Amino acid sequence: MSNKANPVLEAHPMNGGDGTYSYTKNSYYQREAANVAQTLIGDVIGMKLDINKITSSTNAFCIADLGCSVGPNSFVSVENILEAIKHKYQSGCMSSQMPEFQVFFNDHAGNDFNTLFANFPPTRPYFAAGVPGSFHGRLFPKSSLHFVHSSYATHWLSKVPEELTDKNSPAWNKGKIHYTTAPEEVVNAYAAQFAKDMATFLEARAQELVVGGMMMLIMQAVPTGIPHSRVPNGVMFDFLGSILMDMAKEGVISEAEVDSFNLPVYTTSPKEIGELVERNGCFSIERMESTSPWLASKHSNSNYGKTLSMSLRAGMEGVFKSHFGSEITNQLFNRLCDQSGQLTHQLEESYSCCREGTQLFVALKRK
Amino acid sequence: MSNKANPVLEAHPMNGGDGTYSYTKNSYYQREAANVAQTLIGDVIGMKLDINKITSSTNAFCIADLGCSVGPNSFVSVENILEAIKHKYQSGCMSSQMPEFQVFFNDHAGNDFNTLFANFPPTRPYFAAGVPGSFHGRLFPKSSLHFVHSSYATHWLSKVPEELTDKNSPAWNKGKIHYTTAPEEVVNAYAAQFAKDMATFLEARAQELVVGGMMMLIMQAVPTGIPHSRVPNGVMFDFLGSILMDMAKEGVISEAEVDSFNLPVYTTSPKEIGELVERNGCFSIERMESTSPWLASKHSNSNYGKTLSMSLRAGMEGVFKSHFGSEITNQLFNRLCDQSGQLTHQLEESYSCCREGTQLFVALKRK
Repeated sequence: MSNKANPVLEAHPMNGGDGTYSYTKNSYYQREAANVAQTLIGDVIGMKLDINKITSSTNAFCIADLGCSVGPNSFVSVENILEAIKHKYQSGCMSSQMPEFQVFFNDHAGNDFNTLFANFPPTRPYFAAGVPGSFHGRLFPKSSLHFVHSSYATHWLSKVPEELTDKNSPAWNKGKIHYTTAPEEVVNAYAAQFAKDMATFLEARAQELVVGGMMMLIMQAVPTGIPHSRVPNGVMFDFLGSILMDMAKEGVISEAEVDSFNLPVYTTSPKEIGELVERNGCFSIERMESTSPWLASKHSNSNYGKTLSMSLRAGMEGVFKSHFGSEITNQLFNRLCDQSGQLTHQLEESYSCCREGTQLFVALKRK
Repeated sequence: MSNKANPVLEAHPMNGGDGTYSYTKNSYYQREAANVAQTLIGDVIGMKLDINKITSSTNAFCIADLGCSVGPNSFVSVENILEAIKHKYQSGCMSSQMPEFQVFFNDHAGNDFNTLFANFPPTRPYFAAGVPGSFHGRLFPKSSLHFVHSSYATHWLSKVPEELTDKNSPAWNKGKIHYTTAPEEVVNAYAAQFAKDMATFLEARAQELVVGGMMMLIMQAVPTGIPHSRVPNGVMFDFLGSILMDMAKEGVISEAEVDSFNLPVYTTSPKEIGELVERNGCFSIERMESTSPWLASKHSNSNYGKTLSMSLRAGMEGVFKSHFGSEITNQLFNRLCDQSGQLTHQLEESYSCCREGTQLFVALKRK
């Protein structure tokens, strides 16, 4: 209860959710209002709106971050991008004035946008919007974006390749949850799904970006010639799979449940992504560079096995939950946390053969 | 737990909120990734991004709905607007092709955008985005909108006029929660705040709308010559205030708590809004029309006292909660619901003098 004598009341949104007292279920009166206005709006648009005159449009600079989640890193990336663009304007080689910036933060509709919006930097040099929906399809009008950024998002597949859970398929992925150390058919099924998803992704972005607009992708990668089982990602997924198999052996879950579960994520290689971009045909590759963030995070944090466990949980808990339910998933990640020392050890080993190149930076320009 | 043999896994957002397992608190690794990419992004923008070339921009048609809440009515309004615009294109008098549409749904950052996005019509002829923030300030880049719609939102003030809770002010609003039946000084303080807020609102929209772009406002209104106490809105707020005073007399709350509370909403008149638009100077009034939704909803729903109580709760519970707390607010609205018969009776009486003109439709065009 507030006893402030002089409260400044600023934001009082309608009731959320869809419960008894929600605005969703109690907006009959406002709907009546909309009905009454409907004819008037139609009339005025018909008689007064001069569309031929108004489609001369904005000079705002529009940026999209695809797969923003609830924001913390996304804000850092956007600020970084804005700095670089502003610097260009300030250097005096631009023929036009500094534009205003509009940034679109995109993620799945099920993403926690309320938290994203609550996390927005209070003072920010751009107008912000949230765009819910899958980036495996169109999200923006034609030629409406000038710059696209996506970091650690495009490894998510739109779905698990169907043949993985078909007992009669050579790609049946028994006893595993990923393609790491799995038969070649499984790897191929994953690669084919990634190629399909990337084709849709590039096609959509090619429509949304203006000619000359750029897209920067930061993604996990497998260096040329290194097997997936030696890449830190592969090690982690294998580790999670083996915990699940332990749980199956103990009777906590059935083996069939593990057999029918596969992680919808895929790690590409520089060669593969280059070919997919070329096949699409709408983009030129302006830069492609391998880097190694794992090494950086190892050195900056001695307890990184545990940090990685938590990071993995924050990013992937949802996909386990929807297959195994909350209780099993909770147990799985608690076991992962308990065994993080062992995971650290295995990761150390994988570093010994794969110190660099597990992150890929790709800069594309719309032709 | 899912037993589906072949789950199609589609959307697995990162963990929301800001708890122990949230992505907010566990995205250290992805931040490292962003740091590594930072220099590369800056480099590529500096060397490869040809801004002079790309600022030729979109021909998308951009619509904003201000004060959309969680959507249900907003979607109906937007569909209505799109129908009218498309009709215009189909009538053959346009010099350009049908554009793609982008619709911005705006409300306070505290609005439940997760529910709004979950409510989005699954097939919709537009690209959608959510824009969190107060419409009493800028929300969009300069000249980036072609059409603005706002229904039953602009009556919310940005704050309660300060003098209302100052005991030494002639506008001290003792024993009341609104200006209905209050001294003239109170009404004037409300009107002054509305004028200030409307000035900011119109100034922001004038910047955001392209020349020729239109804005349609649907708002509650007080017909010329009718006292606020006879208008259905006034009756309802008075009714709520008297319940609170009952609660104060019973000792459930203190009178001081009622004295220090005032609803930050104001009902304008056609004359007043006309003057404010003229003072701003950037818009021409293309149409202004009074209608009467109350009458319509009365006839279409016999139990409208109760419906109104629920509607009032969904729309205004938040502002009561932040002053009185959840428990008192719950009691207040339960009492309102119990007394809805009496409210109905008082509303019937107010209809007898005020059958028309309690809703205002205003169509403005950016000069």
